[in-house]
Amino acid sequence: MNAPVSPAQLTSALNWRYATKAFDTKSLPADIWASLEESLRLTPSSYGLQPWKFFIIADPAVRAKLRPVSWNQPQVTDASHLVVFARRTEMTEKDVEDFFNQMVTERNANATVLEPYRQMMIGGVVKGMDAARQREWAARQLYIALGQLMTSAAVLGVDTCALEGIDAAAYTEILGLKGSGFEVVVACAVGYRAKDDKYAAMKKIRFPASRVIGRI
Amino acid sequence: MNAPVSPAQLTSALNWRYATKAFDTKSLPADIWASLEESLRLTPSSYGLQPWKFFIIADPAVRAKLRPVSWNQPQVTDASHLVVFARRTEMTEKDVEDFFNQMVTERNANATVLEPYRQMMIGGVVKGMDAARQREWAARQLYIALGQLMTSAAVLGVDTCALEGIDAAAYTEILGLKGSGFEVVVACAVGYRAKDDKYAAMKKIRFPASRVIGRI
Repeated sequence: MNAPVSPAQLTSALNWRYATKAFDTKSLPADIWASLEESLRLTPSSYGLQPWKFFIIADPAVRAKLRPVSWNQPQVTDASHLVVFARRTEMTEKDVEDFFNQMVTERNANATVLEPYRQMMIGGVVKGMDAARQREWAARQLYIALGQLMTSAAVLGVDTCALEGIDAAAYTEILGLKGSGFEVVVACAVGYRAKDDKYAAMKKIRFPASRVIGRI
Repeated sequence: MNAPVSPAQLTSALNWRYATKAFDTKSLPADIWASLEESLRLTPSSYGLQPWKFFIIADPAVRAKLRPVSWNQPQVTDASHLVVFARRTEMTEKDVEDFFNQMVTERNANATVLEPYRQMMIGGVVKGMDAARQREWAARQLYIALGQLMTSAAVLGVDTCALEGIDAAAYTEILGLKGSGFEVVVACAVGYRAKDDKYAAMKKIRFPASRVIGRI
């Protein structure tokens, strides 16, 4: 593959990004949004099991209801797009089955030959973890998606703000997800920074490499 | 910012990436590796607290010891670089202090004015979570870094393989991290795919957008 980005461009884009507090009302162009949605869908996950669903909240009335359960953060209502990351509440043999069957079909593979892989997934995730661990395992996978989304946005010149301080249970309720097999974990606002967002000009605070990079 | 990547280039890079099983012996050029290390350091985190340390394992003897506690996966010894993601085992007021003091200094800010922010971090993370929740909170932040690293690599034309199936306790032991305040959560191999890695040609299996994208 021809790498679309040089090392200097990547570093520049990652320094440019910041947790945007004030978003402009400008909407993302359709092709840019489509590629960000695809970046969510293409996120790698443990065993490839994709224990998730990404909700794109377009309805202004729903976004208005979510804002008070998000410490009233304006990003919830103002950003071009709001993504809500939901995990599977429980991993069942059917979840493994759905993935496994798609794999066998799309790769034109032999299900009998791949049977040990199916058993490994069931042993590792369905039977090998209790409900609490499954939910945390799924939450971690969502955080890979959150990272992939924010990085993808940065190289596209799009702003984001991860929203961890939300009332996830209230989100699940408001979005009508109770009993759906999915529950909300985290959210992310996506769009363009407002020209007057004072946070854009603030120095990014990161520990020096000497503190966070170890060499062995 | 001029976006270095077009939507089509992003989608192409994310489709190009896959969980590389067989790595080439070729090393990453220094400037590419430096920008990936910087992408780890620049990863966004909850409150900006960066509860992590990223270990770059270069010593072949150490990598040889890690392989048997990684289901003997060859990526551990063969990839150009091996990154081990470690979290803080506990979040203390000093962790908040270190971040806060750096912020006050580098932004030339008024510590008294920012005191409520310091209190919010202490209330939210140090006092508001028990040890188990702190550790899981920190693990989730590491997964943002994992996502950022894999996406950054993809747009640079670099291959990765997340390694979740490792014996994290054995890694912590082998790397001499016991008692250091850090413990291993996950790892990632980084480098170039071998020409004969049969997995490279396999169709990527992802659920359709109709299943994983919800619209509200």
